[in-house]
Amino acid sequence: MLTHPATKYPAYPVVDLPQRQWPSRRLTQAPIWLSTDLRDGNQALFEPMNRERKLRLFDELVRIGFKEIEVGFPSASQTDYDIVRHLIDGSLIPPDVTPMVITQLREDLIATTVQSAAGARRVIVHLYNAIAPAFRQIVFQKDVPEIIAMVEHHVRFLKSQCELHPETEWVLQYSPETFCMAELEVSLAVCNAAIAAWDAGPERAMVINLPTTVEVSTANVFADQIEWMDARLHRREHIVLSVHPHNDRGTGVACAEQAMLAGAQRVEGCLFGNGERSGNLDVVTLALNLYTQGIAPGLDFSDIAGIARIAEACTALPIHPRHPYVGDLVFTAFSGSHQDAIAKGFAAQQDGAPWRVPYLPIDPKDLGRTYDSIVRVNSQSGKGGIAFLLQQDRGIVMPRRMQIEFSAIVQALADASETELSSAQIWSLFEATYLQAHRQGQPLQFTGYRLFDAAQGQGIVLQWRDAQGQAVQRQGVGNGPIAACVNALGLPLRIDSFEERSLGTGADNEALAIVEVVWPGVAGSKFGAGQDANAITAAVLAVLNAAARFEGMAATIVA
Amino acid sequence: MLTHPATKYPAYPVVDLPQRQWPSRRLTQAPIWLSTDLRDGNQALFEPMNRERKLRLFDELVRIGFKEIEVGFPSASQTDYDIVRHLIDGSLIPPDVTPMVITQLREDLIATTVQSAAGARRVIVHLYNAIAPAFRQIVFQKDVPEIIAMVEHHVRFLKSQCELHPETEWVLQYSPETFCMAELEVSLAVCNAAIAAWDAGPERAMVINLPTTVEVSTANVFADQIEWMDARLHRREHIVLSVHPHNDRGTGVACAEQAMLAGAQRVEGCLFGNGERSGNLDVVTLALNLYTQGIAPGLDFSDIAGIARIAEACTALPIHPRHPYVGDLVFTAFSGSHQDAIAKGFAAQQDGAPWRVPYLPIDPKDLGRTYDSIVRVNSQSGKGGIAFLLQQDRGIVMPRRMQIEFSAIVQALADASETELSSAQIWSLFEATYLQAHRQGQPLQFTGYRLFDAAQGQGIVLQWRDAQGQAVQRQGVGNGPIAACVNALGLPLRIDSFEERSLGTGADNEALAIVEVVWPGVAGSKFGAGQDANAITAAVLAVLNAAARFEGMAATIVA
Repeated sequence: MLTHPATKYPAYPVVDLPQRQWPSRRLTQAPIWLSTDLRDGNQALFEPMNRERKLRLFDELVRIGFKEIEVGFPSASQTDYDIVRHLIDGSLIPPDVTPMVITQLREDLIATTVQSAAGARRVIVHLYNAIAPAFRQIVFQKDVPEIIAMVEHHVRFLKSQCELHPETEWVLQYSPETFCMAELEVSLAVCNAAIAAWDAGPERAMVINLPTTVEVSTANVFADQIEWMDARLHRREHIVLSVHPHNDRGTGVACAEQAMLAGAQRVEGCLFGNGERSGNLDVVTLALNLYTQGIAPGLDFSDIAGIARIAEACTALPIHPRHPYVGDLVFTAFSGSHQDAIAKGFAAQQDGAPWRVPYLPIDPKDLGRTYDSIVRVNSQSGKGGIAFLLQQDRGIVMPRRMQIEFSAIVQALADASETELSSAQIWSLFEATYLQAHRQGQPLQFTGYRLFDAAQGQGIVLQWRDAQGQAVQRQGVGNGPIAACVNALGLPLRIDSFEERSLGTGADNEALAIVEVVWPGVAGSKFGAGQDANAITAAVLAVLNAAARFEGMAATIVA
Repeated sequence: MLTHPATKYPAYPVVDLPQRQWPSRRLTQAPIWLSTDLRDGNQALFEPMNRERKLRLFDELVRIGFKEIEVGFPSASQTDYDIVRHLIDGSLIPPDVTPMVITQLREDLIATTVQSAAGARRVIVHLYNAIAPAFRQIVFQKDVPEIIAMVEHHVRFLKSQCELHPETEWVLQYSPETFCMAELEVSLAVCNAAIAAWDAGPERAMVINLPTTVEVSTANVFADQIEWMDARLHRREHIVLSVHPHNDRGTGVACAEQAMLAGAQRVEGCLFGNGERSGNLDVVTLALNLYTQGIAPGLDFSDIAGIARIAEACTALPIHPRHPYVGDLVFTAFSGSHQDAIAKGFAAQQDGAPWRVPYLPIDPKDLGRTYDSIVRVNSQSGKGGIAFLLQQDRGIVMPRRMQIEFSAIVQALADASETELSSAQIWSLFEATYLQAHRQGQPLQFTGYRLFDAAQGQGIVLQWRDAQGQAVQRQGVGNGPIAACVNALGLPLRIDSFEERSLGTGADNEALAIVEVVWPGVAGSKFGAGQDANAITAAVLAVLNAAARFEGMAATIVA
């Protein structure tokens, strides 16, 4: 690459805008927010969300304060169709929230989309088609008049379909996809055709949504494009001008901010920048950028760690430790001079005074976080910090679901103690919860075991004391020692996962075994752990510790 | 947060710049790059780099093409001091590369810094102090004339120290830290004082470096600040105007790009945006943004996956799957319409023609990557993709060091076959390498084992066939079955780590055990794995498979 093939990548065209206004303006209010977490965010996951995760995220988006939520692509996905109907038929959409459904320009798809959403109080139908030269020539082989005719035809078709359901207020959103790569005159002509075909007006709301489908230029060029369009769109006072930035050049947030300066009234994006490729605009970062400029964003991120946990659980994507505002390292200062300046700033900061603590662009408290000079754990800590401390200080690597279980237990203690927990306290809690459960009330106090070879597999003779202190000895056989142990206990346990690892270097080191156990009829799973120099003993202890955590276990085992 | 405390966060001041030029300009050339990976990037890691990792990263930065590299803070860290001397005394700095060393304004620190770097061909000494109002008032309790006098004094002191070592070409870099939060008139006065004290001129090179120490405004305001300074700095033709963007508002890349439009000639940052809090400017993204505009960046990212592996190994920080250009998901298109458009674009793309494949802002080949409609593995894949496929398709979770070992093995096969590897091929390679090593040449072909209780711990009788096909039976005792197994083999093996986990749900499922083994005198460790319904059998097989991978094992075991 050092010898650059100069002809390969043409530079983006700039906009001739000698009288541009946007760089002299300042932001004064939040945009209308549209969350596309359930649509654009969902379609680029390793594993798209199932119905349960989608509904959970929908509820969280409503709780955060989004008033417009793109729910899916009902004509392309039966799951999406069913979810939209479920939300409408179950009256699960609050009266001040409008769902949006997206579709391509095809009559059958448009008809299905309208059916999916009919009956809601208010619905935005999102029509899109790609209009840039590469798409017109390579993908569709259509010229500009043909593209315009296609848009006009399908907007009119949508209008006719909507008129079949007058109980619903229908809003059109039209997106000239690949806007940022298209000639401005073409974008304008197509948008104005859609505006006329929909007959946008005071009673006929409409959104024109301009995307950086793929980021191809610096953010200021996108802002110029928006200012150019803003000045020329027909029926401008009846149009909500929206932008949909992506992040291929790492400048999605800047594009949104500068587009707002240039006239955009509405912004589409996802929590923490999820979305195709390098993601959609990160609405959390944009909202908190506004907040730190004294502008109320209208979205509630006062428990940002809680929102991060839900987003991670729904998308199965991690949040980077350096992610603005939310990353584990964002409010951690390692350097002594920074720590010193921050300490002085906190000391000087008075209640009600403008915020000006050095190196902290926002008061961590406003996000439910704390400033840390080292990694610390309190009631707002995510599972990342807890897992980090246990791994760093004790060599313990927890499976993901166990991290989730344990972080709830840690948070309960931190809430109760209203203080920061030390690494030693977290370890004590881990021990009491997972390693010593078999000693609590002694229903299953381990005293020993013996292995034997059995024709059908591995045999074990398991010894314990019951709640009355009586010695019990039972034998079981299974594929391996864990199955044998479950059979010896005679409990209806199912082992859902098992893992074991050494806690240091050398064959003589102790091993930590972790099992995840399900008890039929009891919701969820529970974990148990065992630690011993003998890996078999550690596994046996893990099974006993997990079993001992189920209420009613003692009664069952005695019977 | 929904009720916003309006007085808490004051809006940033904007710049009155009615004749601003930068939004009408376009980028035409790459900046001078300074990598601060070893300094700003290093100081905010969970675990700062040791000497070995720092030197490895230095070499990689040189290989990529950085001509200016901030090596550390020699007056604050003995490790850094030693590394700078090691690089200079060992003549390890190429003639066209200039190291930079940073120090605060204190005579003893400046003297130590000059000593650390004396004898190099050319050195940049980086002086910085915070100048914004919050710092002047809260942290230092100094007024502007006192700050200016302090800068002048220490620049002169540095000059006198440098004159003791005339064999080295000394360059001053002065950073008014917290520039973006300071009054422009104050920044200008302090910078001009430093310029005069250093006597910058044709023979006395100097860098003025303007940081967004903490991002506090939109990128266009930073660009205005740069344009304002660019027009007013004294001896401008002898000054290199540099910027040092951070990323607290997620707009570090945009700040750098727009600052370049506004007159910045040099940019400081880190690979993949490492650095304090939300990171420094990501130099990889900025360089590739330039590249996709037809501008040769002068940095070689033609093997971006290899660079990512080195950066991850040195910093112990992950790269997010959506990170521009490098993330695992960036060249993966899940949606059918995107896949279709991309396929048509590839078909239409002619050699030597301008790049215009839809949805791909850059030709993945230019980064040594490929476009994937699903997650695929080839010779350029990182361990992330390999680990993802093995986990998704086989439930296998590899420890981190094993991922590194295995990805090298996979890459060797992919290089040899010059094709993409299927999930089945990767699994075959995993099986042959880790699960069936004990069958290769049969020096250690497992035939069975029996456990027994021993007074000193766990006993095992281990049975195998040697290279001649002879049945061998030996017994060993240890803390647990793994130690017993090592003792039964009679080999000088050390088990460095052990882990085992179930490969699915249910006690009857098979377990996969993985051991990491060191053979004294042989560099590095090797892994072995075992899979069996009995977790003990799996562990025994893992030890045999790891042992069988060491050459000379058979000879040792027979003797």
